[in-house]
Amino acid sequence: MAALVARVFKGKAFQTVLRRNFLIILRNLSSSQLYVENFGDPSLTLKKKMYELPSSLGPKEVIVQMIMAPINPSDVNMMEGTYFVQPPLPAVMGNEGVGKVAKVGDEVRGLNVGDIIIPSDTAWGTWQTFKITSEEDVIKLPADISLLSAATISVNPCTAYRMLKDYVDLKPGDVILQNGANSGVGVSVIQLAREWNIRTINIVRDRPDFEKLKLKHSLTKLGADIVVTEEFVRTPQMKDLLKTYTSKPKLAFNCVGGQSATELIRHLGQRGVMVTYGGMSKRPVMAPTGALIFKEVVLCGYWNTSWNRRHKNDINRLTMLSDLCNLIKSSKFEPPPCEFYSLDDYKSAIEKATEGFKGGKVVFKME
Amino acid sequence: MAALVARVFKGKAFQTVLRRNFLIILRNLSSSQLYVENFGDPSLTLKKKMYELPSSLGPKEVIVQMIMAPINPSDVNMMEGTYFVQPPLPAVMGNEGVGKVAKVGDEVRGLNVGDIIIPSDTAWGTWQTFKITSEEDVIKLPADISLLSAATISVNPCTAYRMLKDYVDLKPGDVILQNGANSGVGVSVIQLAREWNIRTINIVRDRPDFEKLKLKHSLTKLGADIVVTEEFVRTPQMKDLLKTYTSKPKLAFNCVGGQSATELIRHLGQRGVMVTYGGMSKRPVMAPTGALIFKEVVLCGYWNTSWNRRHKNDINRLTMLSDLCNLIKSSKFEPPPCEFYSLDDYKSAIEKATEGFKGGKVVFKME
Repeated sequence: MAALVARVFKGKAFQTVLRRNFLIILRNLSSSQLYVENFGDPSLTLKKKMYELPSSLGPKEVIVQMIMAPINPSDVNMMEGTYFVQPPLPAVMGNEGVGKVAKVGDEVRGLNVGDIIIPSDTAWGTWQTFKITSEEDVIKLPADISLLSAATISVNPCTAYRMLKDYVDLKPGDVILQNGANSGVGVSVIQLAREWNIRTINIVRDRPDFEKLKLKHSLTKLGADIVVTEEFVRTPQMKDLLKTYTSKPKLAFNCVGGQSATELIRHLGQRGVMVTYGGMSKRPVMAPTGALIFKEVVLCGYWNTSWNRRHKNDINRLTMLSDLCNLIKSSKFEPPPCEFYSLDDYKSAIEKATEGFKGGKVVFKME
Repeated sequence: MAALVARVFKGKAFQTVLRRNFLIILRNLSSSQLYVENFGDPSLTLKKKMYELPSSLGPKEVIVQMIMAPINPSDVNMMEGTYFVQPPLPAVMGNEGVGKVAKVGDEVRGLNVGDIIIPSDTAWGTWQTFKITSEEDVIKLPADISLLSAATISVNPCTAYRMLKDYVDLKPGDVILQNGANSGVGVSVIQLAREWNIRTINIVRDRPDFEKLKLKHSLTKLGADIVVTEEFVRTPQMKDLLKTYTSKPKLAFNCVGGQSATELIRHLGQRGVMVTYGGMSKRPVMAPTGALIFKEVVLCGYWNTSWNRRHKNDINRLTMLSDLCNLIKSSKFEPPPCEFYSLDDYKSAIEKATEGFKGGKVVFKME
């Protein structure tokens, strides 16, 4: 996998000469790790420890020095024990993040010291300073990528990308709907849709007027066509607003559930598709029978982990990352607003990450 | 369309010589019709009248003498005004039925006097004794088909056929689930699945013990692998029962909604599909977010009218009808248990058709 990625991302063969550069400084290396021994309330179960890395490295292994790693909702669910897949415990937490290759084993062919990598799969354990991993378990990104964008590329932007690509054959000018539009996935959807000439109707939770205007402004600036509140969606004005488009929405993204999801279904066009990728309201998706039978809507779900596992050695995944990296490098795809915490300050970070209406994504910064 | 069907169903060219046989007896012909002027409670709005057929027939028209026509739930919804498509009023009611061609226009090429036909589309108006229609608006069936089977072929058996064929690539030995298993569609599913070596787990409403055993026996006799009640599905024994199969259900059919639909979703396997074709409980379909995201279930609906309209001139429709007719002729596909009423006795027929736990399908018999 890494070898293939290296080719796609202009792997620089000459870097092999640098391979053993860090041998000395990596001796007796310790990793500072955030881990859980038991599932439960993350504010109680997440702990920090030091871990002494083995001094010898397997021939196909690499040492990665982590740079940044966000706290996503899936991390919180994993700590709570409510995520669909769980690592064996104790486990270092963190599903997403960016690191730099600090040392490579003798038989590693696709990675070099200094390369920027992201984990290939879920539950890799990004919340630590150093990790020994297999060459196969990471994906190399271009050297000149923004590190914050790289740290946050593999969950939200990839979810948005796949949901826009894989369910409906969208044409320029087509309209899509989404709730939770200011979520990490939501803002990724807005930016990708803007680049691909897809119009977005974005629904956010009702909130104080000042905050509402600020949020509306920030989403519009990213490329949102329309930003409305959940409250507005239930008024007759929503129908009038949709009538200003020549065609009805073909696709909707739901991360809320309950009444909010039902409203998305209600405003979809004939044979529209609603993709669920989250359930913030903790309420089930409710679909009127008539919408399923007569409007022939299709309801399905997107799970990034599953997609990645099915496409581990797949050119589609590399194409997607390449597309996203190119958009990032040309400043057409911004990372989400973030707040940075050190690993030492993990208790504040978890507290911030689990509160409602937070200002941005919480990101651990290791160096 | 009729011409194509005639070829598929061994159209007998020599029949053209019989064409004008009924000219005399059809003069001054009256049709006895059940119609509504306004939508509402069918027991109040359905009325009967006599209609004098025009004496001249258009060159591409035919006169059909209706033989039998059932009352389906969609007929009741159409009279109530709650169906997704509504005919302009006043309208003769009846979406399904079988008739015999009594006279053909000069330019009709695919139909002959005596041919057995069914309507091609919804809202054709089968609850009457004679109807002038276009050659294009009917489909010819084989002459030797059972008339009761023909009268009830186009809604329930076709719905079952398409739901089994079009959503999941089922292999012999695969398991499917359905609620409302004793419905018209349900018993069609059981019989087709038996022929195609698909195993069916059939869920019926809780009911008195004697009736339950009788129903279980009748469905098992048709080919049902397992018959259980809604109550049983919610017990841990249901999981044990499913474990006796090597693979989990890939496909589920829902005509109930509410908790019953949620249970179907719960027992589906990874990436399973639930097709909704009815909503007897009048409750929406509720899908847990986790089932959509992590189990990647797909929820969709089947609407026979829409499928037929999309496949009006399509070989798939003729293949389906041909397959069903062959099964009927070889006694491998039974018509549902029926109770017969004359058009004159329409008030009792409607009353019977709209009561719960009825013994069989209510069918108007015209001659």
